[in-house]
Amino acid sequence: MDNNGRGDDRVENGFNPEEDDRKKEMKEAEMSVEQIFESQEVPSWRKQLTMRAFAVSFVLSILFSFIVMKLNLTTGIIPSLNVSAGLLGFFFVKTWTKMLEKSGLLKQPFTRQENTVIQTCVVASSGIAFSGGFGSYLFGMSERIAQQSGDTGGVKNPSLGWIIGFLFVVSFLGLFSVVPLRKIMVIDFRLTYPSGTATAHLINSFHTPQGAKLAKKQVKTLGKFFSFSFLWGFFQWFYTAEETCGFFNFPTLGLKAYENKFFFDFSATYVGVGMICPYIINISVLLGGILSWGVMWPLIETRKGDWYPADVSSSNMHGLQGYKVFIAIAMILGDGLYNFFKVLSRTLIGLFHQIRRRQALPIANQPSPDTSNKLSYDDQRRTQLFLKDQIPTWFSVAGYVTIAVISTIVLPHIFHELKWYYILVLYVFAPTLAFCNAYGCGLTDWSLASTYGKLAIFTIGAWAGSHGGVLAGLAACGVMMNIVSTASDLMQDFKTGYLTLASPRSMFISQVIGTAMGCIVSPCVFWLFYKAFDDLGLPNSQYPAPFAVVYRNMSILGVQGFSALPKNCLLLCYVFFSAAILINLVKDRVGKKWGSYIPLPMAMAIPFYIGSYFAIDMCVGSLILFVWEKINKAKADAFGPAVASGLICGDGIWTLPSSILALAGVKPPICMKFLSRATNARVDKFLGS
Amino acid sequence: MDNNGRGDDRVENGFNPEEDDRKKEMKEAEMSVEQIFESQEVPSWRKQLTMRAFAVSFVLSILFSFIVMKLNLTTGIIPSLNVSAGLLGFFFVKTWTKMLEKSGLLKQPFTRQENTVIQTCVVASSGIAFSGGFGSYLFGMSERIAQQSGDTGGVKNPSLGWIIGFLFVVSFLGLFSVVPLRKIMVIDFRLTYPSGTATAHLINSFHTPQGAKLAKKQVKTLGKFFSFSFLWGFFQWFYTAEETCGFFNFPTLGLKAYENKFFFDFSATYVGVGMICPYIINISVLLGGILSWGVMWPLIETRKGDWYPADVSSSNMHGLQGYKVFIAIAMILGDGLYNFFKVLSRTLIGLFHQIRRRQALPIANQPSPDTSNKLSYDDQRRTQLFLKDQIPTWFSVAGYVTIAVISTIVLPHIFHELKWYYILVLYVFAPTLAFCNAYGCGLTDWSLASTYGKLAIFTIGAWAGSHGGVLAGLAACGVMMNIVSTASDLMQDFKTGYLTLASPRSMFISQVIGTAMGCIVSPCVFWLFYKAFDDLGLPNSQYPAPFAVVYRNMSILGVQGFSALPKNCLLLCYVFFSAAILINLVKDRVGKKWGSYIPLPMAMAIPFYIGSYFAIDMCVGSLILFVWEKINKAKADAFGPAVASGLICGDGIWTLPSSILALAGVKPPICMKFLSRATNARVDKFLGS
Repeated sequence: MDNNGRGDDRVENGFNPEEDDRKKEMKEAEMSVEQIFESQEVPSWRKQLTMRAFAVSFVLSILFSFIVMKLNLTTGIIPSLNVSAGLLGFFFVKTWTKMLEKSGLLKQPFTRQENTVIQTCVVASSGIAFSGGFGSYLFGMSERIAQQSGDTGGVKNPSLGWIIGFLFVVSFLGLFSVVPLRKIMVIDFRLTYPSGTATAHLINSFHTPQGAKLAKKQVKTLGKFFSFSFLWGFFQWFYTAEETCGFFNFPTLGLKAYENKFFFDFSATYVGVGMICPYIINISVLLGGILSWGVMWPLIETRKGDWYPADVSSSNMHGLQGYKVFIAIAMILGDGLYNFFKVLSRTLIGLFHQIRRRQALPIANQPSPDTSNKLSYDDQRRTQLFLKDQIPTWFSVAGYVTIAVISTIVLPHIFHELKWYYILVLYVFAPTLAFCNAYGCGLTDWSLASTYGKLAIFTIGAWAGSHGGVLAGLAACGVMMNIVSTASDLMQDFKTGYLTLASPRSMFISQVIGTAMGCIVSPCVFWLFYKAFDDLGLPNSQYPAPFAVVYRNMSILGVQGFSALPKNCLLLCYVFFSAAILINLVKDRVGKKWGSYIPLPMAMAIPFYIGSYFAIDMCVGSLILFVWEKINKAKADAFGPAVASGLICGDGIWTLPSSILALAGVKPPICMKFLSRATNARVDKFLGS
Repeated sequence: MDNNGRGDDRVENGFNPEEDDRKKEMKEAEMSVEQIFESQEVPSWRKQLTMRAFAVSFVLSILFSFIVMKLNLTTGIIPSLNVSAGLLGFFFVKTWTKMLEKSGLLKQPFTRQENTVIQTCVVASSGIAFSGGFGSYLFGMSERIAQQSGDTGGVKNPSLGWIIGFLFVVSFLGLFSVVPLRKIMVIDFRLTYPSGTATAHLINSFHTPQGAKLAKKQVKTLGKFFSFSFLWGFFQWFYTAEETCGFFNFPTLGLKAYENKFFFDFSATYVGVGMICPYIINISVLLGGILSWGVMWPLIETRKGDWYPADVSSSNMHGLQGYKVFIAIAMILGDGLYNFFKVLSRTLIGLFHQIRRRQALPIANQPSPDTSNKLSYDDQRRTQLFLKDQIPTWFSVAGYVTIAVISTIVLPHIFHELKWYYILVLYVFAPTLAFCNAYGCGLTDWSLASTYGKLAIFTIGAWAGSHGGVLAGLAACGVMMNIVSTASDLMQDFKTGYLTLASPRSMFISQVIGTAMGCIVSPCVFWLFYKAFDDLGLPNSQYPAPFAVVYRNMSILGVQGFSALPKNCLLLCYVFFSAAILINLVKDRVGKKWGSYIPLPMAMAIPFYIGSYFAIDMCVGSLILFVWEKINKAKADAFGPAVASGLICGDGIWTLPSSILALAGVKPPICMKFLSRATNARVDKFLGS
């Protein structure tokens, strides 16, 4: 389901492959990477884990938790934040060490390994903000979402205590389940892990003199756009006295278009997201918006009273809202299922070939000769260091079993509907699925975490049935997603560590510490949003949390079947489900050249529910990047990601003061209102009298 | 009174003197200008006057009439539009000739002389939009302004017929009055005419290969910002359903500041104006705004019921409005009077020296030997061509007398209050004053046109007294301003012609045709504004036409004396009148270095009446230019004027479709309203119920 840059999954790869190629060529012309770094001593794994690294990680993890949370709760589209995390991590520690160097207090220079530790920790921590399901399964359990879905299934309102507890007992399982496989995946199978590799290239480049110079410029650009975006968010705030006021409700394309959710909402975040996401995603989102809000919903609305009762409220699932949610679900499931089988089959075929090759060569724990023969200096040195620090297998097995036991005992106390034997079954299958996901991610860069989560929703939901099946399904989704997601994240980090000579031990510990940070920071950030914005999760608010409704309705579907759907909705769902599969099939058949012009069904499905205003923002971002590339391709490639990161981070961090202001009861003083001329005349008369 | 870049006069000099110096240095290092152009034949004066030149001039004169009219009616600050006129004229004819050249139909190449003809024609034509008094004396006669002034003096509402008639009988007198003096001013006295010289440099530079390349780039920049500014105006239109809606009412600095007219109103025009005007003018305007709306008016308002009756409407001259208008008048008169005497004394001293030198050398009609000895090749060639085509003196004398007779007969029919003997007196003194103005302008670049106009208001107003003195004063002002203003314009053009080898005959004819165009185009443009915008001239509207009220009240002052002023207003007027003189005195005393940091009283007076929103726009323009200069001085110098021109022209030309839309009764569909939170809650309740 969940592939690169689509729907409810994180876009892993924010890098331009061409750029990597260019870099590679340049390097090959000169020296290999490890030859450049030969003179630098690699610190021991203990020395890679510095206090300053974790201090910086903590600050960044708060920053990125805000950003990811905001994205979760607005659209669920989360672009790759690797570049920003890398740049900012580098910037902070570099400043830190420079200041200490000047004062003569510097004991240890800043190395690539330390940089990798920060990157790993931040990604692990902000990963929880995604896999914690604050915009999907976890928030889908709340009363507010249940009311919108109009079901009688159980509810569990968010509360800081149980969320932190829940995250702690499920988030570490994934790490232990794949640790023993690191050598097989990274060295023996030589999986590519495109995102991990790209991050490693980035970090390596920072630590060459040339790269450091470019990075400094990029940080400056990022800083500029960060400030702009932050101040712009601040400025917008003043004009948002009520939910209906402000730039977020600017009918940029006219009132008629605004009613159908077509408008540019001046969100710096989504302009930045549009600059990072590939063009085809932005176009897909826009197409989806036009198809749904431009064509289908107006058409279905004319059937009001026939297809669905005319007297239901606009947020009722038995009315138009039902079509919006279920057609989106159908498309997401169609796309997801196709990609699930595609990645699974590629995983199995890949595995089959690997195993057959290894059987032919019984000398275990050694690279196969056809690769070892041509092992470059870089690979030799990297392999040597990767194998130096071992993590014993008994340690990981013991860890997994211990945590599994604890969580089997604890979880039923949190979710009464989730019986212990459901959890046991999940934990038996989880390592296999975690391995599949880590392997598939290594091959294709697609993490299928939320697809496995959806599988859990349907299976456990159906199993539990009417005895609290809705809640059991959502909780099972959470358990599964956390395991599977952290597993693939860890393996990406091992690859990054391999390429930057960071020790697997320091990677593992950094991931553990990052995950622990995330288990505390993310719920707190969510709690801030939840308390500060009263209308969190309501359809027309600033934070509609679209996937919360989608996930809950999937769970209802799993329990109740199709009985809940309004007239003709099932038919439309079948059509869109098949269309999603068909589009993917065509996309894969016609080859890369033409396939890249075919939209992605997953991306198309998102605006079905929330409208296409963010699609317009994203297309503006695309347009800016496109024009920039036309004018100066080299500059756009070098600084585009920095500009985008600045826009996203600045607006994201503005949500911190904005939610604190909301909590403190400070309301903006002005309402920027948009009225039609006729309404305005009435208002003027009213105010005049 | 009216000096460079101030108040109700046009800013003549948009060029950076340093840049001119730089150009001069570069040229001196290579070849003299006329050596570069030696190979190019100078066409005869008849051939300089091409049909295409006048076609292009006509198009540009409409464009600039719109711009000048908009500036007239919003604030009365009119920056130098020479660069834009020069660039656009060059661009249009160049495109035209290039197209013809490709099709093989080109008979005559595009020369500098033709370019000068266009420039002259456009400046003459758009000059009428200023000297026609549509934002000052002429509109001050209307009933709408009379009501605001609350006086019982006569009114004459605008009407296309009499305005065109009036302009035709007064606008040509200035031309004939100074034509015989062209040789004395340009060749014998060698007056500098900074604006005319700068324009000539610009035109000369366009026609060198290097200059043409730069001009092409500048035109491209201008075009980009023109489009942006036009589209921005268009976009803003949609949100302005009523006068109180839209970006023009954006409380950018908060509601409290907005009430006191401190806000950025997103006007591309005034951002552009701010980029052209010197920094000190922008700062003066802002200072004036802070002093008046930030300090004085709030303080005076606390005296409500004591100093002035509490029950008068906000636009009544016996209330706070009176303080605003009369203190502004006091400051404008103080500044004006100081500069009048300053320029007059310099004129007389300069004249005295010139005449004494000429008396010592009785060989008339020849350059004095101390200059002829060192006459450069350039000067020789220019003098030769300037003297080639003569305009006989009997022709100008006959022209002046004929037109004076016609207008003495016609004018009393238009304004019954303006007796024929007033006109006769004006026409006897006019040539002297026209000469003074042309001479002073040549020395200092300051056209004192509106000062002479104000003198006429007071003298004729006082003479006519209560027998329609108010209207007679305003009409006399118009007669005087038109003569004096066209005279200095013509002499500037002769200087430009001298430096570009354009014939005086073609300059004169171009000026006559341009003036005739202006006499028709300007009233039509004004008529469009007048009919399209119902609230033209009202204090809080988009087009407050501030100087209309100011001029009418000057006239009332001339007739009724100080009796009309509210309590303590006269005292304050004395204070500000003296302060204006004092500031000028200090400015002149402390020398150029420190004097350039002392604000200009005339510029400070403008926001007294209309508020400082445009001052903030202008300061934003300043800031942009300042930052640009810090980043890249060379680029800012080369492209700053083009950017500013683009912004001004685009927004200015948008008023054409916008007024046509208004005339056709097409109203914008949306109102962007700004309400305080409390009011918004009431409105929401009202709309909800």
